[in-house]
Order: sequence, then structure tokens, then C-alpha cells
Amino acid sequence: MFKKILYPTDFSDVSARVMDYIRELKGSGIQTVILLHVIDQRDFKCFEQGVQWVGKLPAEFENEYRKYITDESNRQMGAIAKELTRIGLEVRSKLVIGVPFVEILKAEEEESVSAIILGSHGKSNIREMMLGSVSEKVIRKSKTPVIVIKR
Amino acid sequence: MFKKILYPTDFSDVSARVMDYIRELKGSGIQTVILLHVIDQRDFKCFEQGVQWVGKLPAEFENEYRKYITDESNRQMGAIAKELTRIGLEVRSKLVIGVPFVEILKAEEEESVSAIILGSHGKSNIREMMLGSVSEKVIRKSKTPVIVIKR
Repeated sequence: MFKKILYPTDFSDVSARVMDYIRELKGSGIQTVILLHVIDQRDFKCFEQGVQWVGKLPAEFENEYRKYITDESNRQMGAIAKELTRIGLEVRSKLVIGVPFVEILKAEEEESVSAIILGSHGKSNIREMMLGSVSEKVIRKSKTPVIVIKR
Repeated sequence: MFKKILYPTDFSDVSARVMDYIRELKGSGIQTVILLHVIDQRDFKCFEQGVQWVGKLPAEFENEYRKYITDESNRQMGAIAKELTRIGLEVRSKLVIGVPFVEILKAEEEESVSAIILGSHGKSNIREMMLGSVSEKVIRKSKTPVIVIKR
């Protein structure tokens, strides 16, 4: 029932606490962790606006920024994957660009996971305050059980 | 981390599925289950209105109704408690009258549970559709992890 779980991380503190619970759930049969990080595509919009604000053309800097954010995400995912492997779990990492809750639900389906484990509130921002948190949307729409770790 | 869990049940189908997961979580160290059923105090209001509608005085029937609903709840809780005991868990049953999400959060605190396991949507009714589900409110306000089992 908890054999293959999806762990979407935004690298926030509460997301780090999830690790403690994954460790604990090993007793309930977790074997594989699908580690997912979604780079919010809407952040690129903000970035573009910033570049334009200082009078530059976004196109010149977009690739550079994309490379930076991808490298940084891969670095952080690598550290988490390493720890999960150390405690004896099989890990598959996925890095995608999109809208977080949409990509999480897509991964749930594509990977046929048996549960999702996530932090209740990640990096809080104005967008989340207005639209509801990523976790709330995932809980509402997921098909598998969701284990919600509180901040 | 999952030693003592709170299992609020409204006796709905999804609540029954929770049992399967509790069984599974035994491997992660569940020892005690606090089994909670909240008789929604607002249902008494509806009952009173019904009695008045047919031209009777609510006071005459209230005790009778209260006894019926309490006996029925105890019977259903008994069956769940028996099954939990059978799989080797210590069970403590609590039957209270109140507002469900408030009583669930109160029990979380009073019993110092380490997690809450519940169904995503219980008996759906108009009240829930308008005010949001019990589980959503519990997830938002609880201090411990919440394991949400989907319908």
C-alpha cells in the first residue's frame, strides 16, 4: 500500500521534515521513492519582468537563468536522493518545469504511485495565499492517499 | 512517529477504507488507536425542527433520540474497535457530541497523538459542500501529520 511513494519537494524546511517520516514508513513497506521537483513556470514570468525592468531583453538572459535554476535544483535533489538511497530506498528523480500541483498529479498518474507524502505548506508566497496552497489542491484532486506533514 | 494515532470515523465507506491503511501502518509502529466519533450537535437542531414541524414538542423526544443515536454510534464503534483489537492494537474509543472538526482537533491535543488518519470526504451533505469538508479543516489546523485516505 505504501510501496512506491511520490515525494514532491520544494526544498523548504517542512519538506525536509518529510524525510523523517519516509524513514519511519520504511516499516510499512516503502521500496521506491519518486522524488519530484517542479520549477514553477510562473517564476520565469517574474524573471522576465525583472529583466525588462532594468531595460534588458529577456531572451538574452533566459537560457542563462534556466541553466542556473536547473543546476541548482539538480544539486538539491541529488542531496535528498543520496540520503534516501543511504537508508535503503530505490530513488527515481524527476525535474520538470510547470505548475506544481498539476505536475504532481501528473506524476501520481504516470508513475502509478501508491501514496503521496508532502509538506502542508511549502515556500509561502502571495500566489499561494491567494490561490490556496499546492498541498490543498493535491489533496483535493489526488486519487491515492496523501500523507501531509505539518510545518 | 506513528505510535499513537487518532482515527476519527463517521462510519462512511471511505472511513472503512482507513482500516486497511491502519493495518498496513502497523509496520511503522502504530500501537494505540484513539477511535473517535463525533455526533454532530447541529443534527440535533435538524431533529428538533422536524419534531416541531409535525406539531410536537422537541423536549419530549430529545432524550429518546439522543439515546438512539448514542446506542447506534456505540454499536458501530464497537465493531471497529473489535477489529482493531483483533489485529493487535490497543484501542481507546471516544464518543462525543459537538462540531466534528473542533472535537477532532481537541482530541488531537488532549491525547497527544502522533498522527491523524482520516477519509478525505465523509458523509457528504449540503453543510459540508458550503463550509468545506471536515478533513480540509482538520488538515489546515492540525499540528501533527494527517494521513488522508481518498474515496
